[in-house]
Amino acid sequence: MSKQLCLGGFMRPVCLHTAWWRHPSAPANANFHWPTIKSLAQKLENACFDAIFTADHLALMPMPPAALRRSATVTSYDPLVMLSAIAACTEHIGLIATGSTSYEDPYLLARRFASLDHLSNGRAGWNIVTTVNPEAARNFGLENALRHSDRYARAEEFFDVVTGLWDGWSDKALTMDKESGIFSDLEKIRPLNHKGEFFSVQGPLNIARPVQGWPVIALAGASEGARDLAARSADLVFGNARSLETAQQFYRDVKARARALGRNPDEIKILPACQVYVGATREEALAKKRYMDDLVHIESNIPNLSIRLGVDCSGFDPDQPLPELPVTEQGQGNQREWVALARREKLTVRELAKRAAESGTGELVGTAKEIADQMETWLMNEGCDGYIIVFHTVPDGYDDFITMVVPELQRRGLMRTQYEGNTLRENIGLPRPISPLDK
Amino acid sequence: MSKQLCLGGFMRPVCLHTAWWRHPSAPANANFHWPTIKSLAQKLENACFDAIFTADHLALMPMPPAALRRSATVTSYDPLVMLSAIAACTEHIGLIATGSTSYEDPYLLARRFASLDHLSNGRAGWNIVTTVNPEAARNFGLENALRHSDRYARAEEFFDVVTGLWDGWSDKALTMDKESGIFSDLEKIRPLNHKGEFFSVQGPLNIARPVQGWPVIALAGASEGARDLAARSADLVFGNARSLETAQQFYRDVKARARALGRNPDEIKILPACQVYVGATREEALAKKRYMDDLVHIESNIPNLSIRLGVDCSGFDPDQPLPELPVTEQGQGNQREWVALARREKLTVRELAKRAAESGTGELVGTAKEIADQMETWLMNEGCDGYIIVFHTVPDGYDDFITMVVPELQRRGLMRTQYEGNTLRENIGLPRPISPLDK
Ligand SMILES: Cc1cc2nc3c(=O)[nH]c(=O)nc-3n(C[C@H](O)[C@H](O)[C@H](O)COP(=O)(O)O)c2cc1C
Ligand SMILES: Cc1cc2nc3c(=O)[nH]c(=O)nc-3n(C[C@H](O)[C@H](O)[C@H](O)COP(=O)(O)O)c2cc1C
Repeated sequence: MSKQLCLGGFMRPVCLHTAWWRHPSAPANANFHWPTIKSLAQKLENACFDAIFTADHLALMPMPPAALRRSATVTSYDPLVMLSAIAACTEHIGLIATGSTSYEDPYLLARRFASLDHLSNGRAGWNIVTTVNPEAARNFGLENALRHSDRYARAEEFFDVVTGLWDGWSDKALTMDKESGIFSDLEKIRPLNHKGEFFSVQGPLNIARPVQGWPVIALAGASEGARDLAARSADLVFGNARSLETAQQFYRDVKARARALGRNPDEIKILPACQVYVGATREEALAKKRYMDDLVHIESNIPNLSIRLGVDCSGFDPDQPLPELPVTEQGQGNQREWVALARREKLTVRELAKRAAESGTGELVGTAKEIADQMETWLMNEGCDGYIIVFHTVPDGYDDFITMVVPELQRRGLMRTQYEGNTLRENIGLPRPISPLDK
Repeated sequence: MSKQLCLGGFMRPVCLHTAWWRHPSAPANANFHWPTIKSLAQKLENACFDAIFTADHLALMPMPPAALRRSATVTSYDPLVMLSAIAACTEHIGLIATGSTSYEDPYLLARRFASLDHLSNGRAGWNIVTTVNPEAARNFGLENALRHSDRYARAEEFFDVVTGLWDGWSDKALTMDKESGIFSDLEKIRPLNHKGEFFSVQGPLNIARPVQGWPVIALAGASEGARDLAARSADLVFGNARSLETAQQFYRDVKARARALGRNPDEIKILPACQVYVGATREEALAKKRYMDDLVHIESNIPNLSIRLGVDCSGFDPDQPLPELPVTEQGQGNQREWVALARREKLTVRELAKRAAESGTGELVGTAKEIADQMETWLMNEGCDGYIIVFHTVPDGYDDFITMVVPELQRRGLMRTQYEGNTLRENIGLPRPISPLDK
């Protein structure tokens, strides 16, 4: 079989574009309206996506009020609650929930993902995040988030506890023999007795080993800490690459780290997130993008400009050129670059803010053929093993991709036309971890 | 409308009888087999039960290995994962999940129950427990469970944080005005800024106020701490009464406490848990009970005897009379009583252990008419406002109750024949809490 793309659909929030909910087609409450969520999930399954992906940030997003009140992110479901419900009305698609190693508890998290894996018959995935959102810390008794290195030290230990709990059950632990009345073989259910820097967890878990052995493990992050943890532990690595060249650098780096740890690099899949605008013609696709971007109010764009420039831009007149700026320390090193851009192209504050706000993910804009071309190029040239597709609005963004791009990818043999495996691991081509009790 | 019973079905574990899984009709894996769980939930909904109830203990149950290996409780779903899936394939029935105030986190718990409430369109309930199982502590970094009084102090604060987070959203917070681009009115979404003895939680929650204002609040426990918390906070109170007289004492006490706090005592419902055996004749019902109890191996009964006698009975010969016992301090005050019983009735260890193991809940055994009679008597005489029904096996226990007792209760007007309200609160007849932001 030829090489295929591994495709995840970004579904929580339903879209990342700031203005998605203002689109005429969009039910503005889609993020917390179950019938909408259910129908989107079923669309992705009918289109043979590998998995649904759900992000999580554990607090309101850190935006100034003028931007926050314009953001649909203020209300959406807990990822596991949402995916458990989706599990009940789908049969094949994978279900990847973000779970924070900084603020969740490992025993509860291990049990919840094991539950979802049993309930969905082997379709669960855990996206490990350390949660960067600084607002989150204050919802969990801390003044500030942990330091970056502590976050990853905690994440490593958290991962070991969770997988250790899953491994504490042999696949053969349950005898369920009505005749003798023996339900389980306790020799095959072992306590973990973990005592570490961050956690003490006795175990065992009170649910059997997941159908997949371990749910699929996903991870995002570009830092050294994130790459090391990914190389050691992740099946899927999410990225954000904007050009083939930077994508290749990331791809080769993560695969090399995995290889150095003795892993088969084919068993760690790199999936950049990518927002897609597709049209019958390139112009139509570009018009869709322009339409969406024009729906974004300047109050939503200004915070991005403030970040780029390291100064609060909320008081600036949007229709005047950028004023002279105080030199600051906090600027992310690129204040000079952005000022130069504004002067060179004679941009107003409004125009500059729009540039600063370009979607945080990569973008693909064009016809189905153009988009498939680029996906194929990246897939064949160590740019990626697939994508997390980000839709620009609901339901149009979903429908555009599914009716235009998916058939083109299927025609080229880059995407399945029906699910071949039973579990998410089988569909992606990942091995099933064996418990030490079964070795 | 005449007075009706409020009925919950105990579904996690699917049954409480130690030997339920050995019954010939039972799928032994029912506790973690989704198609079975789904069909049981749908049966309860078709029978117009108010709610599904799910317990939780956050560890393997504290039994000696000889008993533990015979127990089907070793593996079952996380309650919220299970109920979220059930929400997706039911329409009316309430969904009550146990959530621990000792080991869960209030921000996450508040968000998960709010998510379930939105997803199910107003059917969520939270059973507040402090988690007595001593094994649980060691899964969460503690050597021992908190002291009883600390557990309830923490539970009170936990409850205030969770309800405070739900109340931080006005019902009118979401404007979602596509024209202006304003999604929410931040004046109507307030941080909590809670700083207490156990928790510091800033808020606000990143999900809108639950459909029911607050999910239904349930609570179990007989201690002073539990009764006080129930009187202040619970909509439903689960109990364990064995006789009408003790039931009435509990009923009147809890209602009096609620009244003393200015609450309407009709808005706090007392629901004892009750295991039911029903047959076409009384003999048939008794035979079912005997059949089930005979399926329990002595190794499962011995731990209960050890608890009653305050000594480890695992070494005793089951077919001999009770040996002379060392007098102990730890006995729950009733060693003397149990020894006297054994001597008086000349019971073997096996026979005595069986008596000690009588189900932890109350029991009703008889014809549908007899069972309905007793339920009606308790309902009309301040014994209860309804029951949590515990089924003796799967699916027979469910089917027996639904095909025999439910029609009898419906005929008497003690149970609905179709759901009248949209939410769990509406179906039970509970008011919807108003946020201070909307007063
Ligand atoms: C596709 C994708 C999805 C992500 N989802 C989340 C998320 O749900 N929650 C979160 O806190 N961070 C999320 N992140 C951010 C990463 O987890 C990570 O924190 C970030 O990339 C910075 O990490 P680093 O400083 O280690 O590079 C996501 C990143 C990507 C590329
Ligand atoms: C119907 C019913 C269900 C219960 N479910 C749970 C449960 O799921 N988890 C738990 O830890 N305790 C459960 N309990 C126990 C109570 O929460 C409580 O801890 C126990 O009654 C002792 O509390 P007390 O010492 O305050 O009286 C349940 C009790 C009853 C009657």
